[in-house]
Amino acid sequence: MKKIGEQTIVFEKNIYIESSGTVVGPKEREGPIGSSFDRAYDDLYCGEQSWELAERRLMKEAIMICLTKGKVQTHDVDLFIAGDLLNQTVTANYVASELHIPFLGVFSACSTMTEAMLVASTFIDGAFARRVLVATSSHYGAAERQFRFPTTIGVQKGESASWTVTGGAAALLSTTRSPFRIRTATIGRVIDSGVTDPLDMGRAMAPAAFATIRQHLIDCGLSIEAYDVIITGDLGKVGSSELKSLCYDAGMNLSERYDDCGVLIYDTEQQAFAGGSGCACCAVVTYSYFLEKMRERKIKTMLVVATGALFNSTMMKQNQTIPAIAHAIAIEAVT
Amino acid sequence: MKKIGEQTIVFEKNIYIESSGTVVGPKEREGPIGSSFDRAYDDLYCGEQSWELAERRLMKEAIMICLTKGKVQTHDVDLFIAGDLLNQTVTANYVASELHIPFLGVFSACSTMTEAMLVASTFIDGAFARRVLVATSSHYGAAERQFRFPTTIGVQKGESASWTVTGGAAALLSTTRSPFRIRTATIGRVIDSGVTDPLDMGRAMAPAAFATIRQHLIDCGLSIEAYDVIITGDLGKVGSSELKSLCYDAGMNLSERYDDCGVLIYDTEQQAFAGGSGCACCAVVTYSYFLEKMRERKIKTMLVVATGALFNSTMMKQNQTIPAIAHAIAIEAVT
Repeated sequence: MKKIGEQTIVFEKNIYIESSGTVVGPKEREGPIGSSFDRAYDDLYCGEQSWELAERRLMKEAIMICLTKGKVQTHDVDLFIAGDLLNQTVTANYVASELHIPFLGVFSACSTMTEAMLVASTFIDGAFARRVLVATSSHYGAAERQFRFPTTIGVQKGESASWTVTGGAAALLSTTRSPFRIRTATIGRVIDSGVTDPLDMGRAMAPAAFATIRQHLIDCGLSIEAYDVIITGDLGKVGSSELKSLCYDAGMNLSERYDDCGVLIYDTEQQAFAGGSGCACCAVVTYSYFLEKMRERKIKTMLVVATGALFNSTMMKQNQTIPAIAHAIAIEAVT
Repeated sequence: MKKIGEQTIVFEKNIYIESSGTVVGPKEREGPIGSSFDRAYDDLYCGEQSWELAERRLMKEAIMICLTKGKVQTHDVDLFIAGDLLNQTVTANYVASELHIPFLGVFSACSTMTEAMLVASTFIDGAFARRVLVATSSHYGAAERQFRFPTTIGVQKGESASWTVTGGAAALLSTTRSPFRIRTATIGRVIDSGVTDPLDMGRAMAPAAFATIRQHLIDCGLSIEAYDVIITGDLGKVGSSELKSLCYDAGMNLSERYDDCGVLIYDTEQQAFAGGSGCACCAVVTYSYFLEKMRERKIKTMLVVATGALFNSTMMKQNQTIPAIAHAIAIEAVT
């Protein structure tokens, strides 16, 4: 068995991130790590007629950049695994219909990025595929009107609210040697901590992130110091501080090696409330900013814990809770 | 490589359907195969306060029946893979939060059932998991108000419309010997044939079903006669007839060995238009009616082709097309 402990998979083959591509919107480009991304648009429509079509373009372009950088054509790819925030994951499916690659749709809200990577890695490790393309996307305007209110209403938000990242991100996984090797993956459990406020997703997701990080370390027999950096997807300021205190209470010193992609992507002056969120958040920051740090050898080992809050507007109207999940992928620099 | 041809996986291990569970609503129980299901409810609320909560109960109960029949407890299950029609696949996630089993959310609309089975089979075959639970669900009332109109408006439908199956279905996959062995799986490609009418999903999905069946036979080097029965998920009357004519044009004699779960589940007198649809449709019919036929040795080989149409109401308002996908699983009777 390649499964160790309760939730973790150790890959036997050397699986690498062969290449990646990231495309973002204007707010992300203006943020503190804006220069890391491969491409950025000046406005939220990205030259399309609607925000939903813009999201589709973002995912498609991220894929094209990724394939071009990897010098790979679509017919060299065995499998495409993707997901997005739009209802029925339509963005991923429209993009898949243009790619003609066998497709598996996955969904765990903003944890979709690591879920796609872990399923891709198992397919490669188990010899079911040689090269797998993964992608995620999200769009501020499309997400706001789907999950909350049309932005034109101008509903006010509190400090725990997040700002959906406008972006598309893609990566190619294979056994072709690159500076980034995927070693282990921890499959999350869904944790429902009773939060019912869709403007407080960080608090809903922090217990899921904590559970996955803790179980990953137990399964692998590692202490938290094994990683140069542990990053969460989009807990934001409120959720990050909640996670740090959960770790502190459990005797784990997370703070020294911790970053949250949602906190990193916007400046305080950008009025993004608690920080970024969305399926693209963890993906654009990891594939651009953190892989670059790894390439520069500033980081050697990294645990990426994308975090997802599962809710829809009908469930919110019925006063239901928001379950959450976090899947983790361990990446190490190859010398 | 366990991948043969372009889209098909041949499993090396003997992977079996250890047990299954199905629960349906009143209309499905009154249908021609109503006695096949493990449990049925008298009304659409299933004792809950809302249709969405009813759907959750249906999935949960199907799982409990499946585990009880298999004499398996949740801690004996390594992985739970599920999906459903509700936006953000909330049903599967709420159920997963109660099961405490590591969870992977998958989504390909009404093809989710075979996608879950194929991902589960790869995890078992690749030694990433020993025993995997898969589940899907859908609910007529919950789906109508989400995808189309509140049922109380009484919008009239044409003959190409489908009726979402109210049901939950679950299966346990492992290497524990049972009468049902999974041999191969074909991963679908997303096909967009330009259909824009959400009340004509059969026509949107037929080309995807055809492409998957055709590719499966090519990849495996089989003729269509290799299967005693080939079943599609929910093409309904219109889509089935479209699929048959696509096969006829390609020189494949599908008609003699073909059934559609959406056509089978309701009688003409039940006013279900073209037939049943939804993530539960193919699953409740396959796990109950067809596995029973296999147990009785009336069928020895079967190709299950669940079919999914990916659309949401925002895309329909923007006059976008409906992409479709079909994943196939080949099951054979074990003597």
